[in-house]
Amino acid sequence: MPGKVAIFRKEHFNAAHRLNNPSLSEEENKILFGKCNNPNYHGHNYDLIVKVSGAVDKVTGYVIDTKYLSDIIKEHVTDRFDHRNLNLDIEEFKDLNPTTENIVIVIYDILRNKIDHHLDLKITLYETERNYAEYPA
Amino acid sequence: MPGKVAIFRKEHFNAAHRLNNPSLSEEENKILFGKCNNPNYHGHNYDLIVKVSGAVDKVTGYVIDTKYLSDIIKEHVTDRFDHRNLNLDIEEFKDLNPTTENIVIVIYDILRNKIDHHLDLKITLYETERNYAEYPA
Amino acid sequence: MPGKVAIFRKEHFNAAHRLNNPSLSEEENKILFGKCNNPNYHGHNYDLIVKVSGAVDKVTGYVIDTKYLSDIIKEHVTDRFDHRNLNLDIEEFKDLNPTTENIVIVIYDILRNKIDHHLDLKITLYETERNYAEYPA
Amino acid sequence: MPGKVAIFRKEHFNAAHRLNNPSLSEEENKILFGKCNNPNYHGHNYDLIVKVSGAVDKVTGYVIDTKYLSDIIKEHVTDRFDHRNLNLDIEEFKDLNPTTENIVIVIYDILRNKIDHHLDLKITLYETERNYAEYPA
Amino acid sequence: MPGKVAIFRKEHFNAAHRLNNPSLSEEENKILFGKCNNPNYHGHNYDLIVKVSGAVDKVTGYVIDTKYLSDIIKEHVTDRFDHRNLNLDIEEFKDLNPTTENIVIVIYDILRNKIDHHLDLKITLYETERNYAEYPA
Amino acid sequence: MPGKVAIFRKEHFNAAHRLNNPSLSEEENKILFGKCNNPNYHGHNYDLIVKVSGAVDKVTGYVIDTKYLSDIIKEHVTDRFDHRNLNLDIEEFKDLNPTTENIVIVIYDILRNKIDHHLDLKITLYETERNYAEYPA
Repeated sequence: MPGKVAIFRKEHFNAAHRLNNPSLSEEENKILFGKCNNPNYHGHNYDLIVKVSGAVDKVTGYVIDTKYLSDIIKEHVTDRFDHRNLNLDIEEFKDLNPTTENIVIVIYDILRNKIDHHLDLKITLYETERNYAEYPA
Repeated sequence: MPGKVAIFRKEHFNAAHRLNNPSLSEEENKILFGKCNNPNYHGHNYDLIVKVSGAVDKVTGYVIDTKYLSDIIKEHVTDRFDHRNLNLDIEEFKDLNPTTENIVIVIYDILRNKIDHHLDLKITLYETERNYAEYPA
Repeated sequence: MPGKVAIFRKEHFNAAHRLNNPSLSEEENKILFGKCNNPNYHGHNYDLIVKVSGAVDKVTGYVIDTKYLSDIIKEHVTDRFDHRNLNLDIEEFKDLNPTTENIVIVIYDILRNKIDHHLDLKITLYETERNYAEYPA
Repeated sequence: MPGKVAIFRKEHFNAAHRLNNPSLSEEENKILFGKCNNPNYHGHNYDLIVKVSGAVDKVTGYVIDTKYLSDIIKEHVTDRFDHRNLNLDIEEFKDLNPTTENIVIVIYDILRNKIDHHLDLKITLYETERNYAEYPA
Repeated sequence: MPGKVAIFRKEHFNAAHRLNNPSLSEEENKILFGKCNNPNYHGHNYDLIVKVSGAVDKVTGYVIDTKYLSDIIKEHVTDRFDHRNLNLDIEEFKDLNPTTENIVIVIYDILRNKIDHHLDLKITLYETERNYAEYPA
Repeated sequence: MPGKVAIFRKEHFNAAHRLNNPSLSEEENKILFGKCNNPNYHGHNYDLIVKVSGAVDKVTGYVIDTKYLSDIIKEHVTDRFDHRNLNLDIEEFKDLNPTTENIVIVIYDILRNKIDHHLDLKITLYETERNYAEYPA
């Protein structure tokens, strides 16, 4: 009997953000985050990859129905984040700096309790095709 | 002395398939697999990535000769699957639903005994650029 | 005042097909189309690019609203072709060989009278990333 | 003697924007531009392709030195637009709705008089990989 | 009756080269071509796109058989250029600087008389994904 | 408190090389490495992905500042390797065959002591989009 198989689903959203730690001074933020600290924001086309690993169901041949997986990503993540300003519009980033690292943890935490706990979960988020993050590492 | 290095080879094949569990009724299959159950089939450009990990040979500087790796993938997988109907033309799927999960296990089983058992093997299969699977996870 | 601007919208569909000219013999079709003539079909992930060119509207800043463009492509092309067998399920190919060339002309003819005749239209269709067609050339 | 050759240079910038026509009411903008009208902005990774066509210089084998081409794109476009809010930070969009169509015309106008008038110029701008524009069409 | 359709075929080759005009001094070449003039060569993965436009044949549904097109590209271009040093191994560049512009003209000239003169031909060559050329423009 | 996050940075360089083991005869090298052994070299556009994993800093929201990461990759790897001949110009390959496997180990060894030892490091190197290596596996 085969071991775990991983299934991946790629989604995307387009959002504005700025890197800024609200607990630091304006000057400190400017030094730490440079042009990413622009007070008027900049933005990205975020590509999101959700990896779910587990046993293959004998009846369906699925680890998880990717239609269902796509639906919960849309409902809980991309419909909430798409065409938004992460800093201003998304509750989770009101006091949290929206670095790629922090966004990927936030998305993991959102999806973790929507997916059967027998299944492993990993999130990859591309901020650009040259900068991306993965959680858990 | 360095540890294991992984080498990857990407190949592709174009195939028709439908998702269907022959042991279920027509109605049950339609509910479970939706438009993927179309009795006249649909199809995909499958991208296949074969990952082989092991020690680097001192003489060649190779984990495995990628020319040889490409040749065995072609002989045993892509020449058999390319421009075929997975359900009708490929023996392994006569009684097995060709989900991405099941295809990736079938390809792993085909290649595992063609490759030196000192080398680790992992298969990734892209059904589309947004849906893919990996085995072992 | 600036001249015409082109706007592009990319969509996709996954379909099965076989190359076959119903007016030729089985033997002639096999010689002409080789493995693409497999009677059990094979399939592709088709990427479709619709290019619309014209003047930019002063009020909206649009040549055409890409949301509207995307909607008519979905309604008239991708919802009809996706997860289908082009030869068996799509009326336009009942007597027409679904080569990339013929598919691209069929899609052009479908969309041409859904789009304002002051706007130019061009269709590009990727059968694979290495084989694609454009109409009009 | 060969005719014109086109040379292409791809650059990119990441920016925030919102679609909004300052001469319309809030309600009219919301109806016209939907989620793209979010007052807190959203953003994109813009890919910019600059095409320059002309005769090949006998001595250099160049239509234009792509190092020079890249430098003027950086100086006049991407260094100005990158990590900015197009509506708030970029003078050209103070009174102009930053649709892909309008951005591509603005970039053309910026670069047209930096490049030898014997050379033809065309600009392509990807807002996302599925939405892009070209000028002149 | 429909007008011309264009069909595209993508191939690739990996080659070494240096930019150097043999009729100039070492110093002049260094100033003109900078790091691309390295006397020990550098190299690229070249992606080649061949576009052929014409009427669609009523019997085959083809402008040109892409299998045949691929075969002549391989025989006359990629088998000759792949894993070669363009300056040293390829006759056409013995006295011609292998800029992207010059390579694209050379490939056009090679293929032009292998393809029916009723068909139009255009060559695109990617030196990198950010630098490419097209001929005729 | 969340576990480790991985952050990825993609860079690239263009280089010439040949596969050749200086301790073997010309004939043996030719048999082992085929067309990759061309004495006049061939070349590639190498894509390099550097993965760094560790805890997210509370103040910055970073595992590592990707600007800093990009700077050390440029200084120690891509500025040294770009537009070079790996066999002739790069000290590490004077007596080492520049296979993808060996290059990826060399880059790992260069970067390992530039990056905080609390952080994990993994290198992926694409020789082409179809051949790539990862270290450690």
